[in-house]
Amino acid sequence: ADAQAGKAKAGVCAACHGSNGISIIPDYPNLAGQKVKYLESAIKAYRDGERKNAIMSPMATGLTEADVANLAAYFASLPVGG
Amino acid sequence: ADAQAGKAKAGVCAACHGSNGISIIPDYPNLAGQKVKYLESAIKAYRDGERKNAIMSPMATGLTEADVANLAAYFASLPVGG
Repeated sequence: ADAQAGKAKAGVCAACHGSNGISIIPDYPNLAGQKVKYLESAIKAYRDGERKNAIMSPMATGLTEADVANLAAYFASLPVGG
Repeated sequence: ADAQAGKAKAGVCAACHGSNGISIIPDYPNLAGQKVKYLESAIKAYRDGERKNAIMSPMATGLTEADVANLAAYFASLPVGG
């Protein structure tokens, strides 16, 4: 996976999850330093409809396998705690 | 919420999420230092069937509102990164 490509893709995510992966809004999870495999499964759950969320579902729609891997690698690479 | 009561309730959670809230198994999320409100909504999603998971659904079944608040407070209180 390519965390740099993930960073480029993650611009829109920062609005809720924070530019350092610590979310600005208490309802949304911190992502910095989270487990890569968990992040991948969560993104796919939103993409594939296993998880339904008014904001995350549209965000995840259309992401390719590479996008998912890169986004997960990027957020997992951020220093835990921001 | 009562993080101490949450700790007492969280014994079974440690098996996957780690005694310090850093999960042992890459597929499962780290919980230490996560946002309280997000943790509450995730636990409730499993309890109320919004999220379906072979392991988490039975774990969350039957938790009271107080249990949910205490568990969320406990894990949120753990030092991020373990």
